[in-house]
Amino acid sequence: MTGFRERLESISRANKSLVCIGLDPDPNLMAVPDVADFNRAIVDATADLVCAFKPNFPFYEALGMPGLRALEQTVEHIRSVAPDVVLLADGKRGDIGSTNEKYAQALFTTWGFDAATVNAYAGIESLDPFFEYADKGIIIWCRSSNPGAGDIQDIRVNDGSEGQPMYEWLAAQAAERNTHGNIGLVVGATYPEQLSAVRGRSPGLPILIPGIGAQGGALEESLTAGLDSGAPNVLISSSRGITYASRDESDFAEMARTAASTLRDQINEVLAAEGRPW
Amino acid sequence: MTGFRERLESISRANKSLVCIGLDPDPNLMAVPDVADFNRAIVDATADLVCAFKPNFPFYEALGMPGLRALEQTVEHIRSVAPDVVLLADGKRGDIGSTNEKYAQALFTTWGFDAATVNAYAGIESLDPFFEYADKGIIIWCRSSNPGAGDIQDIRVNDGSEGQPMYEWLAAQAAERNTHGNIGLVVGATYPEQLSAVRGRSPGLPILIPGIGAQGGALEESLTAGLDSGAPNVLISSSRGITYASRDESDFAEMARTAASTLRDQINEVLAAEGRPW
Repeated sequence: MTGFRERLESISRANKSLVCIGLDPDPNLMAVPDVADFNRAIVDATADLVCAFKPNFPFYEALGMPGLRALEQTVEHIRSVAPDVVLLADGKRGDIGSTNEKYAQALFTTWGFDAATVNAYAGIESLDPFFEYADKGIIIWCRSSNPGAGDIQDIRVNDGSEGQPMYEWLAAQAAERNTHGNIGLVVGATYPEQLSAVRGRSPGLPILIPGIGAQGGALEESLTAGLDSGAPNVLISSSRGITYASRDESDFAEMARTAASTLRDQINEVLAAEGRPW
Repeated sequence: MTGFRERLESISRANKSLVCIGLDPDPNLMAVPDVADFNRAIVDATADLVCAFKPNFPFYEALGMPGLRALEQTVEHIRSVAPDVVLLADGKRGDIGSTNEKYAQALFTTWGFDAATVNAYAGIESLDPFFEYADKGIIIWCRSSNPGAGDIQDIRVNDGSEGQPMYEWLAAQAAERNTHGNIGLVVGATYPEQLSAVRGRSPGLPILIPGIGAQGGALEESLTAGLDSGAPNVLISSSRGITYASRDESDFAEMARTAASTLRDQINEVLAAEGRPW
């Protein structure tokens, strides 16, 4: 059984890519009306350029049962045409432990995802039912980049010294609990210094970095701040910047490929400049 | 358009009940194999004894598409036989604001729930897309009762004085943002002093109190700590203590009714002792 981190490293190396494409289907933006058709076209056009696909659950849930069926078809298609690409569920699930057993079952057994974003509001202990899936990736939502993010994430944890922001404490806790090697973190791209702080606290943990493009995060600063020693342990996630690069039915798949390829190249230039080419 | 709080107060008064039944279908525990059949039997047996039904989303998601179809059928059935009972989605959803727009759409427009539990990890600002649904109930997960709950929820927020635990700060923030009168809080029943602190910070906000029964919360202490002035603004939630009171097909619905009736009576005795009979 291949673990999440090995799977991520293997496909990143094979495709020379740290690009994760977020699949956030929005009927107001899609070039074709059917969600499954749209996703299949994006996947077919980009599967050799990425390390992961990341369906964002609420975009499917908002469409009701047809949306969830489209998610099911999307998962099947990715497994069929790109079986080695990491399939990452973005739902930020989290509750107390007994309920998290059901979330973990849903995401990893029923849906069959390789990894999932989770929410640690009920504490690290609450995530134990996720952590028990040793071959899956448990990506803890650590620091976001929205205006209100600091409300909770930046509260200083008093550890005897002058304290540290909660998100740094959480990153350190995650690293400490990483006995199965299956934990990762989500850190937004907007503030590279936060990424740098998290990386310092969590060597060996993959970091999912959303917000390149649409949310204005700077690629070079974010990537260098997030890079691990050894394997890169970074996933640079872009959604609408790729999937809605064109909204024209005639070329949206081709333009998505161009956008994904450009992002991959930009990332690889930074890696090369860091003396770490593939 | 009737708002959530009016709806809750009206059905609580009509049914003389603060009981919320959690519908957490578990195939290992259900007296009959079909989820929709099971829920319909529970609903039919208890609808006149409750103020709310609360499907717990991961229990349906863990069963895949058939589970989600059963949730759909359950919602339809509750709307059909008990249209005035509050229908509360328990999914603790939460992400940054642009994504929360989709969660809100899913829960309130697509599924049509009256209220939903949400997660404030990205800060109060991230919940704005939920708050905009003025006639829906936005129930912010505030304090849980699991062993690790204090990791994040109890971190002291330095407000210039000696500080307060984060969950109290969150309750005060929620009260401040309650301009539409549509915000509530989730606080576990295990530690009544926490409930009391939250109530002090959030007059006028309904509090959903899970953990009576299975999680060992004491009813009387929790209820008196959570009671508001004016309307009770409390939902006492019980799941398996009611739905799995019997695991025998011949009497599980009847026993669920007995358990719900007993809980309602116990609550109403406390209300009467507080000088606040219906």
